Formats: sequence, structure tokens, C-alpha cells
Amino acid sequence: MQQSVKRITILGSTGSIGTQALEVVRDHPTVFKVAVLSALKNSTLLIQQALEFKPAIVVICDESKYIEVKDALFGLDIKVLAGEVALSEVASYTDSDVVLTALMGSVGLKPTIAAIKAGKNIALANKETLVVAGELITQLAIENQVKILPVDSEHSAIFQCLVGEEQNEIEKIYLTASGGPFLGKTKDFLSTVKKEQALKHPNWVMGAKITIDSASLMNKGLEVIEAKWLFNLDVDQIDVIVHPQSIIHSIVQFTDGSMKAQMGVPDMKLPIQYALNYPDRLKNNFKRFNFLEYPNFSFLKADMETFRNLGLAFTSLRKGGNMPCILNAANEIVVEAFLKDKIGFLQMSEVIEQCMEEISFIEKPQLSDYLETDKHSRILAGELVTKSIV
Amino acid sequence: MQQSVKRITILGSTGSIGTQALEVVRDHPTVFKVAVLSALKNSTLLIQQALEFKPAIVVICDESKYIEVKDALFGLDIKVLAGEVALSEVASYTDSDVVLTALMGSVGLKPTIAAIKAGKNIALANKETLVVAGELITQLAIENQVKILPVDSEHSAIFQCLVGEEQNEIEKIYLTASGGPFLGKTKDFLSTVKKEQALKHPNWVMGAKITIDSASLMNKGLEVIEAKWLFNLDVDQIDVIVHPQSIIHSIVQFTDGSMKAQMGVPDMKLPIQYALNYPDRLKNNFKRFNFLEYPNFSFLKADMETFRNLGLAFTSLRKGGNMPCILNAANEIVVEAFLKDKIGFLQMSEVIEQCMEEISFIEKPQLSDYLETDKHSRILAGELVTKSIV
Repeated sequence: MQQSVKRITILGSTGSIGTQALEVVRDHPTVFKVAVLSALKNSTLLIQQALEFKPAIVVICDESKYIEVKDALFGLDIKVLAGEVALSEVASYTDSDVVLTALMGSVGLKPTIAAIKAGKNIALANKETLVVAGELITQLAIENQVKILPVDSEHSAIFQCLVGEEQNEIEKIYLTASGGPFLGKTKDFLSTVKKEQALKHPNWVMGAKITIDSASLMNKGLEVIEAKWLFNLDVDQIDVIVHPQSIIHSIVQFTDGSMKAQMGVPDMKLPIQYALNYPDRLKNNFKRFNFLEYPNFSFLKADMETFRNLGLAFTSLRKGGNMPCILNAANEIVVEAFLKDKIGFLQMSEVIEQCMEEISFIEKPQLSDYLETDKHSRILAGELVTKSIV
Repeated sequence: MQQSVKRITILGSTGSIGTQALEVVRDHPTVFKVAVLSALKNSTLLIQQALEFKPAIVVICDESKYIEVKDALFGLDIKVLAGEVALSEVASYTDSDVVLTALMGSVGLKPTIAAIKAGKNIALANKETLVVAGELITQLAIENQVKILPVDSEHSAIFQCLVGEEQNEIEKIYLTASGGPFLGKTKDFLSTVKKEQALKHPNWVMGAKITIDSASLMNKGLEVIEAKWLFNLDVDQIDVIVHPQSIIHSIVQFTDGSMKAQMGVPDMKLPIQYALNYPDRLKNNFKRFNFLEYPNFSFLKADMETFRNLGLAFTSLRKGGNMPCILNAANEIVVEAFLKDKIGFLQMSEVIEQCMEEISFIEKPQLSDYLETDKHSRILAGELVTKSIV
């Protein structure tokens, strides 16, 4: 099938999603062209990517690395920018069709808003954007007639199951969860785990933050919130089912009782490729699923008693307003602390819950309220981490 | 959602599919109206259905029951016809939008052709139509711009997974098979089984013929042939996987490696309803699937050594021409013989294979060739049954 080249902006090109997106681009040179690349601080890889993919613009957020990047790309027709503020600028770059937001954490919010306002379709890998400000973002997307194309494998699964079903109502969705490395473990066990154990995800190869979130089930909690906004659901229409094999990536149930699931070998490149080239699928050589290699799929109820983060995420979504923003910001702080051995695994939930209890609730927040809430929650979580004894 | 009433013709209204279709109609009186009902010989039920649903026409194929039906419906505005030939006449009845072909066996062929030529969409429950003359039927459907909407749960699953994917190529499909009541059994065991055992299907409640076909895996073989024509596939793009729980009804794999599955509690009313009201789903109170009731899905390779019918079906499809027609006709005879205790379970495959070897192969059959082949295969199969010693 002949189609025009899709010009891609990748915010966060040196992370796990960013590098896999570039693999997809590399495999389909006639389909994709890179317009913009941005990295937080990995200048070495950013330079290498820029030399290979020849984007029009690169952004290095860490301003101390600007000169290094600038020098390395000297003489090439590549504009080099520095600093986090540049992200919002390049997100609206004219000669780009789709913006892949593969940034980590709530820093993705502002550039995503800029891209939507510039009429760019969003390939959303930064779930925090919808977690923090889902109502605002989805409203903006409708107003600007842009599509939000999910990159998370679970949401991509739902999204793929919904094509052609636009006129049909969703009864509920099931987000599948691998259960992470601590599936079936007790609270006693969890009280002792270290980051090395939490970083060993059984099925998915991902960045450190999301791997910890997977171990604590916060990742699934954030996905529940993300799903609410992506698919315009009530919280009671969203269920989580543990499926340790991670083959079924998620399921939609329609009002006639029929369910559609998207499945396959766990590989983030598939949802990335689908989002970048939606609605057309591209032939590829990704590993194919074989039933004889996975003769059993199992399903378990998610244990929200032991993995309190998932329950907290549901609570925040039921409460609404700025509550998911509080949860998310506190979570970013506690994960960072856990990765630095400053806090125990179970204490992460305690700090988040305390933030949810103590920070002022705002029922109908504006963007400025979200940004304030995000800041306050980080500060309070940081204080609570400092006070905690591991 | 408001829509115009769909007028339904049901050929075979007193069988398993027919009665379930009428349950769907009963549940949605503002959505469906019955235009035509037909029955082979169950006049009592046909009369009862006619009194309830007030069709414009009823057909009783068994002409000896014409007077009984005529008398029972006297004074009502219902036209009563008799004889198999009347089926083709009513299939093209003007005031009908969709024809559900729920007839048993290859008798469905002629009325289906008549309905297609009259521009009716076909809700196809009579798989033998495509098995016998798939190329002819699908070509006719294209020429007359009618849709063939599958009612078999497996094909409905594939069909549901393909909505919105029209521009995307299928890499392969997996038809799931329950494995039937004899899953895991040896040939020695099969050589002794009686119809009472074969009629106990673990998951689906169906008519006797299809239940025996499920036990012998011929049903899956016929479905493979049906799938080839419905979805325009090569035989090598079709795989069968045994899934004893019958929750995943079938799976499509696209050329990007992504797979979509349709799933749910086994209930034929769902695919019937979907076909009758495609592409809109209708809210209903069918039992919903619950993962906690089915915590394990298992998958096994289909055993074509023990269950030779499935292999024979693949062979007939590879050979093409009138070979699937030979297979199907012989199968109808041997199943009837097995149900009358005239032939053993394994002998069914032997007779079918012999028919495939002995009857003249026609590479590009016309309708008349199919009808001749069907007749010859039935005669030969009948002779072989008579000769066989149980």
C-alpha cells in the first residue's frame, strides 16, 4: 500500500520507548521520517540518533550538554535546542504529523498540550499526562480534532479492539496485569524487597520507573486512570485481571456481552508501530505468538490488599479532581526514593496515601491547579520520604 | 439508537439455530420482524412459531404436513407453502432484509443462491453451503453486492475481529476447537464409541448432526473450508487450535503480528444476534463471561492422526474443485448412518476417504457439477455404509 511519509516527533528518544520507536522507523524508511528528537540528558545516544535519522531539530533538556550536542552535529542541517521549555516549542513543529510523547513522568504534560493545540496527533506513551490531567487533555483533543493514540500495550489493545466499533457501546474493559515479579507474595515479603528484585520484570523490558510501578501495581493503577480518559468510561466499567503470561494485552466487553481481546508476544514495538501508523498496520518481522509455546493462560483476581497502590489509584479516580494528580506526583517521588534505597517497598503506598489525605482537594482543577498540586505533592512526598526510616 | 425494523427470513426455524434466532427476535421486538419461517417437518413447532411471530409466509418442506399447517393458520394473514422447492422461492421474498440460512446440510445451497440473487444479505448458519460451493457463492455475493454474515461462532469471531480492519491484511487465522467429547482419546477407544457418547458435547448445545461432527472434528474441518471462502484465505493461512474451554471463539493474526480474538461464554444467540443486526450490537442479558469462573485457558495442537476427518477436510481444500463437496456429502451420509448405529465412529472417516478417492474430480465445477457430485457421493457413501460391518 502506498502512502505519504509520516513525519514523527519523538519526545524522549533515548528512553526505552523512544529507542524502540526508532527501531520501528529504521525498519520502515519509506513510511516514516524523523522530524524531531529530544532527550533528557543522554547526549551521547541523542547525537548518535541524530546522525542516523537526520531530524530537523534535536532538543537536549539538560542544558549543560548543549554545547556537546551542538558541536557533534555541527555542519549538519539540524537545529539544536536545550532546556525543558524547548519541548513545548518543538512539540508544535510544523513539519511533523504525529508526536510520540515518551517522556517520563508529569513533565510530559506541557509539551503534550502544545502539540494538541498545534493539531498534532499524539502517540501517547507518557501515561502520566492523562493521569494528571485527563479531563483537560481529552477535552483539548476533542476541541482540536486530534487523535490520542495510546502506546501502552494495554490501551493499544483496547484501542485496536475498538476500531470499527465506533457506534457500539462499551460495557466494560479488562486491563490485564502480569502481576509483576511479586505476584502471590505477602506483605511480610514485600516489606523486605530491594530494588534489585523489583527491577526484574517477568515479561516486559522497560525503563526503571515503570518497572517499579509494575512491581507495586501502581503502573496498573495509572493505566486504569489513563483508560478512563482515553475511552470515556466510568470507573466501574474498568476492571483489572492478573494474567501472568502477558499474552492477552487487554479486553473490551460490549453491551451485547461479546468480548474482543488483542494478544501477542509482549513487544512494545507493536503498539508503538500501530500508534505511529494508525489505522494501517505495517508488515514486520516481530516474533509471532505460538500457542504451543504458551499452552496455558491463567487469570487471577488482582490483590489490592497486598498491593495497595492499585486500590489507591481506584480511590483517586473515584474521588476525581486533582486526586490522581496527587497520587501520581507522590508516586514519582517515592519510586525515585525506592530506587535510591531511601524508602521501603510498602512505604511507597504509605507516603502516597498520606499525600492524598493531606493535600487540598480541588474538584474542578484548571491547568495551573494541576501544576500546583503536582508541586505540592512532590514536596510533601519528599518530606515524608526524608522522615521515614527504612 | 433508533433504527428501522429488520425483516428476517429464517430458513430452518425449528432447529437449534432457528429457535435461538427467534429468541433473539422475541427479545428485540422493535428491532426485528419475522418475514418468513420454514421448517423441514416439525409442523407443530412451526405452527406455534407462526402464531407467535406472524410471518407473511411459512414453508413446511414435508408436503404431507401441508394441510395440518394450512388449517392451523386458517384465517390469519399468513401464506402457507409446502415442499423443498418453495425454499428458493421464499428466499427471495421482497419484504425481507436478511435471510438466515439455518438449514441442515447441502439442501441450503439452492435457497442461498436464490437469496443472494435477490440481493438479500445472508446470515449464514448453514456452513455446508460454503463447503460445497464456496467459490461460486462468494463470487455471486460479490456480484450482487450482498454480505455473507457468518453465524458459526468461530467465523463470527473472526468477522467481529475484522471490522474496522478492512485495509489490513490477514496473516493467518486460528479457529478454536473444543476438541469435543473425545479429546485426548485413542483410536482404540474411538473404535468402540456409540452415538450416545458422541452426542454429549462438553460446551455447546447444538443439533445432532453438528454434535457428531464436533466429536469427529469434521465440524472443524468444514469450518476450515468455510473460513477459506468467507475470508478469502489460502489453506495455509488457516490453523486449528484445540481450546477445551471454548471461551476464545477464534483469532485473527494480522501482518504486523497483532492478534485479535473474540471471546465470551459459549452461546449461539450472540453470533446469531450479531449477524442479524450487523454492524450494530444490541444490548442483551446473555450470561456474561467472568474470568474467575474460568481461571485457566488451555491450548493444544489438533490431533489429525486420531481425528482423521479434520485432516481429510484440509486435504479436500488443498485439492479444491469438487473435493470438499464430495467430503461433505459423504459425511452427511455417514453421520446419519452413525446416528442409526449402522456404522462405527472411525468408519465414518474411512467411507469419506474412499468417496474422495473414487468419485471423479472436477477442477472447476459449475453448479450442476456440484449437484451431481453431491448426489454421487451420497450414493457411494450409502453403498459403502451398507457394505460395512459394524
